[in-house]
Amino acid sequence: MTVNINLKKEIDLSYQVTIDTLTELNFETKVAIVTNTTVSSLHLEYLKSKIKAKSLIVITLEDGEQYKNWNSIEKILEEMFEARFNRNSLLIAFGGGVIGDMTGFAASIYQRGIDFVQIPTTLLAQVDASVGGKTGFNNKYGKNLVGAFHQPKAVYADAYFLQTLPKREFAAGVAEVVKMAVCFDADFFEWLESADLSDAAQLSEAVSKSVKTKAWVVAQDEKERGLRAALNYGHTFGHVIENETEYKGFLHGEAVAIGMVMANDTAVKLGWMSEDEASRVKDLLEKYDLPTRYEIKDVDAFYETFYLDKKSADSAITFIIPKSLGGVEITDKIDAAVIKEVLGSYATK
Amino acid sequence: MTVNINLKKEIDLSYQVTIDTLTELNFETKVAIVTNTTVSSLHLEYLKSKIKAKSLIVITLEDGEQYKNWNSIEKILEEMFEARFNRNSLLIAFGGGVIGDMTGFAASIYQRGIDFVQIPTTLLAQVDASVGGKTGFNNKYGKNLVGAFHQPKAVYADAYFLQTLPKREFAAGVAEVVKMAVCFDADFFEWLESADLSDAAQLSEAVSKSVKTKAWVVAQDEKERGLRAALNYGHTFGHVIENETEYKGFLHGEAVAIGMVMANDTAVKLGWMSEDEASRVKDLLEKYDLPTRYEIKDVDAFYETFYLDKKSADSAITFIIPKSLGGVEITDKIDAAVIKEVLGSYATK
Repeated sequence: MTVNINLKKEIDLSYQVTIDTLTELNFETKVAIVTNTTVSSLHLEYLKSKIKAKSLIVITLEDGEQYKNWNSIEKILEEMFEARFNRNSLLIAFGGGVIGDMTGFAASIYQRGIDFVQIPTTLLAQVDASVGGKTGFNNKYGKNLVGAFHQPKAVYADAYFLQTLPKREFAAGVAEVVKMAVCFDADFFEWLESADLSDAAQLSEAVSKSVKTKAWVVAQDEKERGLRAALNYGHTFGHVIENETEYKGFLHGEAVAIGMVMANDTAVKLGWMSEDEASRVKDLLEKYDLPTRYEIKDVDAFYETFYLDKKSADSAITFIIPKSLGGVEITDKIDAAVIKEVLGSYATK
Repeated sequence: MTVNINLKKEIDLSYQVTIDTLTELNFETKVAIVTNTTVSSLHLEYLKSKIKAKSLIVITLEDGEQYKNWNSIEKILEEMFEARFNRNSLLIAFGGGVIGDMTGFAASIYQRGIDFVQIPTTLLAQVDASVGGKTGFNNKYGKNLVGAFHQPKAVYADAYFLQTLPKREFAAGVAEVVKMAVCFDADFFEWLESADLSDAAQLSEAVSKSVKTKAWVVAQDEKERGLRAALNYGHTFGHVIENETEYKGFLHGEAVAIGMVMANDTAVKLGWMSEDEASRVKDLLEKYDLPTRYEIKDVDAFYETFYLDKKSADSAITFIIPKSLGGVEITDKIDAAVIKEVLGSYATK
């Protein structure tokens, strides 16, 4: 005999992203701020002055992708247990994408899930990691291979924190903004071409437009079964570049910038994008001193590295190729010869 | 300015529990059976003969609650990464509640969540752990304190596996069956009083009735914000007994059996249950040689241990007290004096 377990239901994971100067935040529960040593020394006192809570602890991790591992997750959990956090307690992720991903994951598994709030301090985290609910950590098999989907209760993106961001990290964030515009919104792209992101108001506008675009994508495809994969534009090539340079040569956003240019070259070759459109994307990236070239020593080895991505479901490689500006195609049907021709144009002479 | 991230949606976590002899199971993906040494030596060949898959690996853990920790979760994950499992791969939890909880949790975090199927081999797991989606592991702060809600895709409860179950473990499962009947279904309780669970057909009937009852509870309250807490009937007292005996004196179901009797004594004292009803529950438990007595050495110390449960949201202690047969009240308003009077009747003379 069979018994039907009926768990069909409406769930509400909605939340607000507030793009503005931080105002006082009141929580009636125990709160832990999870941050890293760098953000802590720059901004912790400022944040603490804005927060009222039943009790407040700070959990400080080392700064860097190499600490995005289970040891750091365990440290967060242990400090919560020591402080006797319960199911109503709250975590605040205060830092960049690494802090956001790990804090969100710790929140998702502490006593089977508690709330968390994001206060991203990098441009990349404000436009990208703050929307979508992807959480997790790295292990020896790769990046973000263990994790959960866990949406924050709220996100506060305050441009104040971006003032202390190193120039390269700021530009790496811009690369993700450009990505969103190229894939989904030609008007946004045109606006970016004439915008001055060193101006606070225009920067907030850019963050807002990016967040709206990503929100629209994620609302349609939270678990990345389809459309959301388009956000990997530039990433197929970018991952190989990061891999070849052992994650030391480029920031993630920089590798993605080069990857987008390679994807555009592919689009031009396929007749999906004009040379002029491809040039405009390249010009916009270069306006922020983002790299758009990478010297490929061995085209075949570069191509083989596509297969190293353990997340790919089978042996076909998925590319995200723009169709004009504001459109994009997710496809695993691109001929290897076409890709190798593009890669060849980056090969060492 | 604010951006609304709208993730309201209908999700379907429904699945079937099949209570029957296992038929051939066909999977078109990579599959890993997660089991322990005991179940493996008794039943692995039988299970393997029933499964067709794209590829099949077996991940074998040590048997016992003391292995319900992160090390075991990591072992499951690592073997999956080594076998290059992807997001379409599947885990099969083949064992009791410990295996089910850990396998479900590993499935919930592998690449942010993959499917799993449960084939429970104990009565307790068939009637309890197989429904509800609670997954997790223990740490030094307590049991099941880290985990996730992750529903299986299907559950197959085959009475065949119960034949090899030690008598005490079988009885511990019966305790959970009785719990379900007392809390929610007077007719089921009466049926149990006259049933013979050594008869295969009647046993399947009991499993089916329990699963249906639990499914009804979980469908209304998956995340245990209300009604589902009633399933902790017998657990408030039982946990203290397990704690005092360092989880060695009693099986979980045995401690719960004593806890139910203590909760019933409280109900009688409050006038919520007649003495006759309380006796009938006790008689039914004793019919399966379940313990119904526990010698309390220090009533105040016993009471204080209620507060050790780190999951309680505040300092009030929540008791699940039956109201007649088939009804139950979740309350944190029971006077300490009443509880201590009940505990006093179990005190060493």
